[in-house]
Amino acid sequence: MSNSREPFRERIARAADAKKSPIVLALDLPTSKRNLPAFAAKTIRAVGQHICAVKMNFHLILPLSASEISRINKLVHSYGLQSIADIKLNDIENTNEVAIDHLTRMGFDAVIANPFIGKGGLAALVQKAHKAGAGVIALVYMSHPGAKEGFGLEVGGRGLYSEFLERATGAGADGIVVGATQLDILRQVAKQQLPVYSPGIGAQGGDAEQAIRSGADYLIIGRSIVEAAQPAKVAKEIQSRILLSVRK
Amino acid sequence: MSNSREPFRERIARAADAKKSPIVLALDLPTSKRNLPAFAAKTIRAVGQHICAVKMNFHLILPLSASEISRINKLVHSYGLQSIADIKLNDIENTNEVAIDHLTRMGFDAVIANPFIGKGGLAALVQKAHKAGAGVIALVYMSHPGAKEGFGLEVGGRGLYSEFLERATGAGADGIVVGATQLDILRQVAKQQLPVYSPGIGAQGGDAEQAIRSGADYLIIGRSIVEAAQPAKVAKEIQSRILLSVRK
Repeated sequence: MSNSREPFRERIARAADAKKSPIVLALDLPTSKRNLPAFAAKTIRAVGQHICAVKMNFHLILPLSASEISRINKLVHSYGLQSIADIKLNDIENTNEVAIDHLTRMGFDAVIANPFIGKGGLAALVQKAHKAGAGVIALVYMSHPGAKEGFGLEVGGRGLYSEFLERATGAGADGIVVGATQLDILRQVAKQQLPVYSPGIGAQGGDAEQAIRSGADYLIIGRSIVEAAQPAKVAKEIQSRILLSVRK
Repeated sequence: MSNSREPFRERIARAADAKKSPIVLALDLPTSKRNLPAFAAKTIRAVGQHICAVKMNFHLILPLSASEISRINKLVHSYGLQSIADIKLNDIENTNEVAIDHLTRMGFDAVIANPFIGKGGLAALVQKAHKAGAGVIALVYMSHPGAKEGFGLEVGGRGLYSEFLERATGAGADGIVVGATQLDILRQVAKQQLPVYSPGIGAQGGDAEQAIRSGADYLIIGRSIVEAAQPAKVAKEIQSRILLSVRK
C-alpha cells in the first residue's frame, strides 16, 4: 500500500467498468465449511469475471490468519478486483487506526465503518486510510429489519441516516452503504456524490435490478452466489440482468 | 464451550473475587510490536495475579490466527481469568452468529456488541452466545470524545444510551460498557442490575478510583499497563489503590 496509488474510489470504478459488473461478492462462508481458504479461492476463481470486488466479513477475518487473508487478497487482485474488509469499525481512534494498519498490511483496499463513532473519529479514520492508500465506506442504512432501530432513529427531526450521510461526506469517505431493502433511502441518497454500496440482495429479500434503478452503484451479494451449486452461473445471471436493466 | 457451564457473569465475578481485582486487561498491543503472541503471553504472565480478565481487540484479533488466539485464551484460563472479544459487533443476525461461533471456538468467554443493531438482533445474539456458554457485554456509552455523537444523541427526549441500556437489559445481556470518562452516566447506570465495565482509564483520561466510586464494577485498562516499563508494578498499584478506595 502506498499513498501514490490511484484512490480506492477510482480503482473500484475502473474494476466495475472492466468487468462490466457492479457486483461486490460477499465471501460470507458458513462456519461449517472445511478448509475456508481453499473454498474462498475456488469461489473467487469461479466468479472473478462477473464481479468487481470481494468483501470479507468475520466469516473469514476471524478464523483465518493474516497470511491466509493476504493470499486471498493477492488472488483477488490477480483478477483485477478490489478487496473490502467489512468489520463495521466503530471504536475509539487508536483502535480504528491499528485496525487500518493491520488490514492494509493484509492487502485490503477499503474498510467499512460506522459513523456512529462521531464526525472526528470518522474523519481521522478516513485520513489514516487514505494515507495507507485505502478507502473507507461508511454505513448509512443497513439491510436488516432492526436497521430502523439504529439508522432510522429520529434525531433532531430527521432520520439518523441523514446525519450519517453528512458525516460520511464531511469526512471524505469513499462510499456509503445503503441496504437494497431500503429503496426510499436509496432514492434519497442517489442524488449524492458518494458511490452507494447496497447489501441485502437475495437472502435478505432485496432485488438487484430494483436496487440499481433506485440508485445503488454497487451491489453486495453473498449467500445467493456463495452457497449456490453453481456460483458462476448465478453471478453471471445477475450480471446480465443488471446490464439489461441499465440499458432499459 | 458448553451450555452446562456456569454463566459468564458468574465466572468473571468469581475471578474478580479470587484475584481481588476488578481489572480487565485490554491487550491493545501496538502494531509496531514484533512477535505479538509472545508479547501477549509475557504480559499475561506478568500481570495475571492482578487482573480478573483479558480483553482482546483488533490489535490481536486481526493479525493473529485462530490457533494463536486459542493458545492465548488457554493461557488466560490457566491463570483463572476470563477472556473477552472486543469487536463491538454491529452486524446482521447471520454475521453476528457466525462471529459468535468462531469466537467461542477460539475460547473467548464473552463478546462486546453494539445495541445499535436493534432489540431483536441483540436478543438473538445473546441467545446464540448463551447457547455456546458465552456472555454478551453491550455498549451503553463509550469513552472517546465523539461518544456523545452516538450514545449521547437525544432520541425521543432522552439520551440514546438510556434506550441502549433498556435493550441490553431486555436482551438478557451479561454486562454493559460505560466509559470511565462519563461519570454522570456511570452514576445513573450503577442503579441497574447489570455489571458495568468501564474503559478509558489512563491513556484516555479516566481515573480508576473515581470510576469505581461512581459505579463501575470492572475497569478496562490497556495502554497504561501494557506499554509500561513494568506492567506488573503498574497493575498491582492500580489494584491496591482500588482495594483501598473500596474499603474507605
